[in-house]
Amino acid sequence: MSEANALTPLPEAMAEGAAAVEQILDEVLAAPQGHEARLFEAMRYASLDGGKRLRPFLTLECARLFDTPDSYSLRAGVAVELIHCYSLIHDDLPAMDDDDLRRGKPSCHIAFDEATAILAGDALQAIAFEILADSATHPDAEVRAALVKGLAIASGGNGMVGGQMIDLAAEHSDADVSTITRMQRLKTGALISFSCEAGAIVGRASDEARQALLHYANDLGLAFQIADDLLDVLGTAEDVGKATQKDEAAGKATFVSLLGVPEAQERAQLLIEQAIARLDMFGEKAAHLRAIANFVVKRRT
Amino acid sequence: MSEANALTPLPEAMAEGAAAVEQILDEVLAAPQGHEARLFEAMRYASLDGGKRLRPFLTLECARLFDTPDSYSLRAGVAVELIHCYSLIHDDLPAMDDDDLRRGKPSCHIAFDEATAILAGDALQAIAFEILADSATHPDAEVRAALVKGLAIASGGNGMVGGQMIDLAAEHSDADVSTITRMQRLKTGALISFSCEAGAIVGRASDEARQALLHYANDLGLAFQIADDLLDVLGTAEDVGKATQKDEAAGKATFVSLLGVPEAQERAQLLIEQAIARLDMFGEKAAHLRAIANFVVKRRT
Repeated sequence: MSEANALTPLPEAMAEGAAAVEQILDEVLAAPQGHEARLFEAMRYASLDGGKRLRPFLTLECARLFDTPDSYSLRAGVAVELIHCYSLIHDDLPAMDDDDLRRGKPSCHIAFDEATAILAGDALQAIAFEILADSATHPDAEVRAALVKGLAIASGGNGMVGGQMIDLAAEHSDADVSTITRMQRLKTGALISFSCEAGAIVGRASDEARQALLHYANDLGLAFQIADDLLDVLGTAEDVGKATQKDEAAGKATFVSLLGVPEAQERAQLLIEQAIARLDMFGEKAAHLRAIANFVVKRRT
Repeated sequence: MSEANALTPLPEAMAEGAAAVEQILDEVLAAPQGHEARLFEAMRYASLDGGKRLRPFLTLECARLFDTPDSYSLRAGVAVELIHCYSLIHDDLPAMDDDDLRRGKPSCHIAFDEATAILAGDALQAIAFEILADSATHPDAEVRAALVKGLAIASGGNGMVGGQMIDLAAEHSDADVSTITRMQRLKTGALISFSCEAGAIVGRASDEARQALLHYANDLGLAFQIADDLLDVLGTAEDVGKATQKDEAAGKATFVSLLGVPEAQERAQLLIEQAIARLDMFGEKAAHLRAIANFVVKRRT
């Protein structure tokens, strides 16, 4: 790639980004011969042909603000996406959220088996870091090491995994809005923030630009999660491609259960307006990042 | 540390290395406040106060061949150990090897619960890469990126996790010595090899020295596994700190079931002699690495 520029309509730009992500995933997940081929089948099953690739697209668009080659930011974005995919496999396991359906098809542990699903998640995490550390991602090792460190923090015990732990614990307790906010900032927010930060890292952004993108990402991530909770209540499984109304059935506190639908919608909208305002310094180049923000609260899946 | 030199007896040198590893683990696994504290408790439970720390000791001793500061190699070794600890948590899960006992105490999913154990393993993997990417591990980012890439490959789908997948698949098939050898080279060998390679990387070893250490590690890793299979047959749970005679009960092919006890013992001994011969170029500095090789086939736990 890429033919896309800031004037390309968002759907075309996202589709082009997703196709480029798919191609890199297909290459890095090439299956070896032997008994472990099944492992790579499961890794490919859970990673290829899936989703909007929002996270890599954020990396791509943030890096474009600094005129960074797409080849760098795409690989960084693919690493984030691989972490996202591994987390979905593990989250769906019977011992965790016990979800049989993901992106409209059987979850990895249903299509394969639990042991293979656990291992596929583990191997996807490893390959994410392998990609970041490879010189094809960036010629400067300082940049590669910064990417590794950032992704490890965002996805680990003080980030995504910690958020999932809070989520599991919160199912058994009376969680309030501040607990849910903190949980979501870790569980989904940390990785979305790093998607943007990765663009700033490969783009060698100034501190000011990096901070602006982090603020944008924080607001976006929270709005994204509120939109997700709203979808769980208002969407159907057919629309969403996974089971809905699970949160309520599980007696789980969410933004919607705590705030009600109208206030949750209003809060998401305010966060989006705030996110968009963070991008002022980037002018027209940030057109897609603004459009994504609006897309996130209006999506149906 | 460190007071140890090549003349310190192996048990003292290993105990000193293990104490230094323990201290770093204690620091990097400091628990945050909040609902995710339980996650860090599980990570600490599965990582602290456990085992001989063979892998970090290999990194330490290999790096000492090149007069590298222990502070670099210890952190690299701790990252390897964290990967090892995460793999034990996941291997013990009911869907995998279903082991209730590990290092003489309840496995992580027994002491906590399955969901917490899965997440603790995931977070331990992430922190291993975080440590390697941190500038405290080495001032040169090229070295840090090389460590990350090497550990990711050794522990991923083409390494440790791939080996575990072959192991699970082999339980249901007629595995021969060549399949078992390949499986073990991935499942345990890849990480043991990287333990030595990491010492060569932080020590900026010549290609020749690095190759010699890799050959040493390959032979050592296979001998280690044969010794493990022998322990499973000849040891008691009390000696070994985990259930024994599980392989036979599971109808699992091992070096011992395929070769018999005397030939397996002989093969391990030959591998150890070969491993020791690989170290000739390092002279007296490699005294501990030679002693480790002998220790590995004579250990009772």
